Amino acid sequence: MRHHLRVMVTAAAISAGMSMFGSTPLGAQSGAHPSIFLTRAEGQQVRARAATAPLLGRTLTQAKATVEAAMRAPIETPPPGEAGGYSHERHKQNYREMQLAGMLYTITGDRRYASWVGRVLEQYAGMYPALGPHPLSKNQAPGRLFHQSLNEANWLVAVSIAYDCVYDALTPAQRTRIERDVLRSMADWLSVRQAKEFDRIHNHGTWAVAAVGMLGFVLNDSAYVNRALYGTKGDRSGGFLRQLDELFSPDGWYMEGPYYVRYALLPFFQFAEAVQRGRPAVRIYAYRDSILKKALFAAVNSAFPNGVFPPINDASRTMAVDAPEVITAVDLAYARYGADRNLLAVAQQQGSVLLSAAGAAVATDLAASRTPPVLAWRSVEYTDGANGQRGGHGVLRAGQGPQATMLLLKYGVHGEGHGHFDKLHFSLFDNGREVIPDYGFARWINIEPKTGGRYLPENDSWAMQTIAHNTVVVDERTQSDFVEKESEKLSGERHFFEVQSPSVQAVSAFAKGYWPGVTAQRTMLLLRDRRLPNPIVVDLFRVVSETEHQYDFPIHYRGQLIATNVGYQFFGSQRSALGSRFGYEHLWKEAAGRSDSTVRVTWLDGSRYYTVSTAAAPGTEVIYARTGAKDSLFNLIVEPMYLLRRRGTTQLFASVIEPHGFFSESLERSEQARPLVTGIRVLASDAEGSVVELTGPRGLRWQVSVTHGAASRTAARTVRNAGSSFTFTGNVQVTGLEPLP
Amino acid sequence: MRHHLRVMVTAAAISAGMSMFGSTPLGAQSGAHPSIFLTRAEGQQVRARAATAPLLGRTLTQAKATVEAAMRAPIETPPPGEAGGYSHERHKQNYREMQLAGMLYTITGDRRYASWVGRVLEQYAGMYPALGPHPLSKNQAPGRLFHQSLNEANWLVAVSIAYDCVYDALTPAQRTRIERDVLRSMADWLSVRQAKEFDRIHNHGTWAVAAVGMLGFVLNDSAYVNRALYGTKGDRSGGFLRQLDELFSPDGWYMEGPYYVRYALLPFFQFAEAVQRGRPAVRIYAYRDSILKKALFAAVNSAFPNGVFPPINDASRTMAVDAPEVITAVDLAYARYGADRNLLAVAQQQGSVLLSAAGAAVATDLAASRTPPVLAWRSVEYTDGANGQRGGHGVLRAGQGPQATMLLLKYGVHGEGHGHFDKLHFSLFDNGREVIPDYGFARWINIEPKTGGRYLPENDSWAMQTIAHNTVVVDERTQSDFVEKESEKLSGERHFFEVQSPSVQAVSAFAKGYWPGVTAQRTMLLLRDRRLPNPIVVDLFRVVSETEHQYDFPIHYRGQLIATNVGYQFFGSQRSALGSRFGYEHLWKEAAGRSDSTVRVTWLDGSRYYTVSTAAAPGTEVIYARTGAKDSLFNLIVEPMYLLRRRGTTQLFASVIEPHGFFSESLERSEQARPLVTGIRVLASDAEGSVVELTGPRGLRWQVSVTHGAASRTAARTVRNAGSSFTFTGNVQVTGLEPLP
Repeated sequence: MRHHLRVMVTAAAISAGMSMFGSTPLGAQSGAHPSIFLTRAEGQQVRARAATAPLLGRTLTQAKATVEAAMRAPIETPPPGEAGGYSHERHKQNYREMQLAGMLYTITGDRRYASWVGRVLEQYAGMYPALGPHPLSKNQAPGRLFHQSLNEANWLVAVSIAYDCVYDALTPAQRTRIERDVLRSMADWLSVRQAKEFDRIHNHGTWAVAAVGMLGFVLNDSAYVNRALYGTKGDRSGGFLRQLDELFSPDGWYMEGPYYVRYALLPFFQFAEAVQRGRPAVRIYAYRDSILKKALFAAVNSAFPNGVFPPINDASRTMAVDAPEVITAVDLAYARYGADRNLLAVAQQQGSVLLSAAGAAVATDLAASRTPPVLAWRSVEYTDGANGQRGGHGVLRAGQGPQATMLLLKYGVHGEGHGHFDKLHFSLFDNGREVIPDYGFARWINIEPKTGGRYLPENDSWAMQTIAHNTVVVDERTQSDFVEKESEKLSGERHFFEVQSPSVQAVSAFAKGYWPGVTAQRTMLLLRDRRLPNPIVVDLFRVVSETEHQYDFPIHYRGQLIATNVGYQFFGSQRSALGSRFGYEHLWKEAAGRSDSTVRVTWLDGSRYYTVSTAAAPGTEVIYARTGAKDSLFNLIVEPMYLLRRRGTTQLFASVIEPHGFFSESLERSEQARPLVTGIRVLASDAEGSVVELTGPRGLRWQVSVTHGAASRTAARTVRNAGSSFTFTGNVQVTGLEPLP
Repeated sequence: MRHHLRVMVTAAAISAGMSMFGSTPLGAQSGAHPSIFLTRAEGQQVRARAATAPLLGRTLTQAKATVEAAMRAPIETPPPGEAGGYSHERHKQNYREMQLAGMLYTITGDRRYASWVGRVLEQYAGMYPALGPHPLSKNQAPGRLFHQSLNEANWLVAVSIAYDCVYDALTPAQRTRIERDVLRSMADWLSVRQAKEFDRIHNHGTWAVAAVGMLGFVLNDSAYVNRALYGTKGDRSGGFLRQLDELFSPDGWYMEGPYYVRYALLPFFQFAEAVQRGRPAVRIYAYRDSILKKALFAAVNSAFPNGVFPPINDASRTMAVDAPEVITAVDLAYARYGADRNLLAVAQQQGSVLLSAAGAAVATDLAASRTPPVLAWRSVEYTDGANGQRGGHGVLRAGQGPQATMLLLKYGVHGEGHGHFDKLHFSLFDNGREVIPDYGFARWINIEPKTGGRYLPENDSWAMQTIAHNTVVVDERTQSDFVEKESEKLSGERHFFEVQSPSVQAVSAFAKGYWPGVTAQRTMLLLRDRRLPNPIVVDLFRVVSETEHQYDFPIHYRGQLIATNVGYQFFGSQRSALGSRFGYEHLWKEAAGRSDSTVRVTWLDGSRYYTVSTAAAPGTEVIYARTGAKDSLFNLIVEPMYLLRRRGTTQLFASVIEPHGFFSESLERSEQARPLVTGIRVLASDAEGSVVELTGPRGLRWQVSVTHGAASRTAARTVRNAGSSFTFTGNVQVTGLEPLP
């Protein structure tokens, strides 16, 4: 039993340095069942711990209820159907329930669970051989049960665990039939017939290798295992290790973004766990400087304080750390990489654990925690690209727990087919809400009447376009003219990321080549001053060009416009779309004004007001718009935004974003609906840097200086305007701030 | 001590019939202090019970924290300022804190509280005599501290309790000065100088009489008390008793609606409590067949299942039972009228109790409750008008707890200055949300940049108009042509209200005279069939006219349009307002189609789909619209709606509203996005009644018959169409339903 105990040591012991991926294998020895995820001894421990660790107990109770209900219902393995339709959902439900039932058999020893799994698999054995490629696949590699082989791989990952658990309870005849007619048949479909998809360095490939590799361990078939680890050619041109090499930056950033890594975390971690148990010599958890650990942390540490993943690129706005895939990864990482207080806090947000030794360890430590763990992520930068040289993503944070403030600046790679044309886009999360949001994808996922729940045309025409984001649009054209392969050639370039001081945190990056002749740099600061109750964002967006262009600086928001200091014309009985392409055709032009002075816009979102004040530039046009134009199927969410429009060569958009005040309609209370920071003025701006002054009541006067030159923390800088010059040292300097005590 | 103990008996004893408003006075004897709300003995009991009744303990802790913070800050009594501004809010905060401090003195005996109240009142005595009428009052009776005397009365109600509590701790000189320069001066301002306002049968009058009457008890001044009870003339042409006679229907319905009664509940109950203690012979709680009890129950029993008051007439969308005024009324009613399990459930929603004997009783019973009380209101009808003869409000309910379904049909009086032109409007609450909503008021309450937080012009031009509601609009004109005094002459007329069967509940009412030559009748049913997971609404809206009119049948909704079966033109790059007056100027016409068949519209709101299917009529136009036109200050909330438009003489809009399915974006799960009840057909409709058939899968076929003739539960009816006739008995009959088990 010695090797089982390793995963059950307390978290304290783990974090004290007891390596979990050393030479001693966890799990059972090669050929024993079950082994790839849960041994019989581990199952017994899960049962024992469920009595004292409430989260584990609750998860176990729910699992039993689900499976008992499934076992009472007739077994259904309907003929293949359309995505999101009954057959599709039924087969998904079948594999989820088989996995749970298998695990419950291992945990409880109750043979009813095992024999039910056997019966379901026999029924699959009766229908699977007759199936050809799914007739409804479109542009996808087809499965046989499902329209795409991706779902087939999902099925096999879950069923490999189920089959491993019940293996010993089946008769040899059952096993022969099930393996031949379903399991191997499916694995061959995925890895032989669709070898190209299998070798793809992409999350679809990850699912396929995990499915085939996990089955390989269960069947003790090293051909499958080797294929999964090293690709169909066996030369590491495909396969799991190559995926770990290429799909993540050295910091663990997944090139498609958090929404997609969430989905990929399951095959990554479940297969890694099987590899660790079946081929400990690979030292998979340590592979590439513990890249799996970094991948998980990059995902959960870039989540908003409420646990929702930022919806960058094609992504849902509500996918969160409580997704089952993230639960799997968090628990396995907690057990394999050592106890981490933030992971424990995430586990608490999740409200569920794995029914495995790893889940038992998390639940036990949570039960032993005297006070609930509070999420306390720090500001962090993630480089992008397999080599970490292709820009990145800066996350600035202030505060703790779900009410913390988080600013995300995006300056990495395009992100392949799911990438958006949104370089230098930012999102702001504050007071429990995504206040300056990213639209995410245009898709009503799995809602059948909305194009079968698939991506909508408006995903291309709106959600991917630059104007759908909070970043400057040049000449009303999307970055790289909306040509994906052009954008893929480029990436953002990091300039600096400095978060040593809790009062002054800053991130800066360039976007070069996204428009002909125009280079952009955005520098964002998250400031704390003890005279202001909330963190303040300063945003300096500089576009450099020798020729004249039109620059649109957009701010998307939610909630209700409260006040602005700029007069405007409201288009009250007739209105038109703001443009005809690059996303502008989806915006109604609601109102427009013009100002030579500071532009101030205040809105209300939730219980707080937000004001963006942008420093003056002559002839600035202010346009208020709202999505919903050219949306003939009502596919878009109707939301407001505004933009500042200027014509010129080089320009600096210098803004301050201030969260302020309080409003409760039900309490009928409103406080401080006007901002404190009322003045913002560009003192000087040239190729060396920009200097901006912000002013407010009670002598508040900050001077913010940032460099546009080569990054250096020690260089002396001089920025000049017509009449005077300003000097500072390093990349960023803020004077006049009263830091928090 | 005997008389103090009465209020502290257990709720069980109370409900066993121990009358709380018998001949024995509660509170202290005339002239003793404190007496009107809390005696010293009661205060000591509050302190004792706080240790064992968590809700009371928490409330007490919060009160101490609030008052301690107030006492640490400088005392400020600034010169009068504008509504919602600093001075206004400061004086409001002062009276709240004085009341709490006074009560804390009585509860704890800590003299710091009393002397602080004395100091604040002395500071008021130093500034109040110099104040004339407030310079910024507009169309309101002015106060001196505040722009309207209503706020002055709020101040005096709270301060009467505060002064009563600290009376014995002040010196005679302090008392003389405070009474002369502030308290009596203010009471005279309210009841002599503004005698007309004081005698008004309106909630402003209620606040004034409560303020003067409560002060009268504290000062043992029977002139004030008599004036408050019987009006300035002493003949009951004004005063508290007259208000109790006229402001409520015999069922306790408050003519301005729940949002306003919420506000009035405080002076009603606080003054009643003072009367009960000071003049028990009035038997105020028993007055008019316990009208105060009925008033409270009408308010909380017409609230949505989540505790929010339906925003009918001028009302906020979020005012809820946890407002402090409702806490006051619930606790006093619980103590005075006997323990009630639903009131206890409301108290739990409130999460706070009064710091009084009544609050202690509620908190004690809650602490003793083995399981949390679950709200289980029944369907109920409230008649309207002082005599109960002016229509009413029907509330149909299904289910229990916050997820219950509630349908509200409005057919009462206009509701004076805050009334909307919305006869036969309905709201539907389901799955925790107001799914088919009422816009409520157009007002950003207390948000200073939005017209000082006052009512906005769009309150008249949109929120009050008929088209802003879910009721038919004739010829694009608001009911009574938007003339309040014309609408005040009318009221809805109840037809029947039948809720005996949990499977078939129905309400029916007429609106006559709101448009020349057109009479309307709406009959709504809330049906339960065990083949459907959710309650279903059937809506039969009949307009009768000999001449041709245009009828618009609107449905306001929230969330996202998912599907419709009617082709339409979408106005995608140019759009216009739907009309030019009566609210239509605020609607953008987004799309329009035409159908001779059933019209089906499905949207998604929260985690559930909703489909409205309306039976065919030739040439029905379907218009999709959205608020926001002619809204130059961005005052309106942008929300979608659609309407069916028909021309003709007599018409029946026969619809079924089905909540169905499930959607979770974060779980990426969608189920049953299409309705089950797909067929709706009018079999016959004439002056006798209407017969409608609804159909769905698995043999679902209901026949719904309702009468348009005289109401009778036993009359036999025959409804004819060209070819056949249908007979049924009573007011409503549904066949084919499979009732819940």
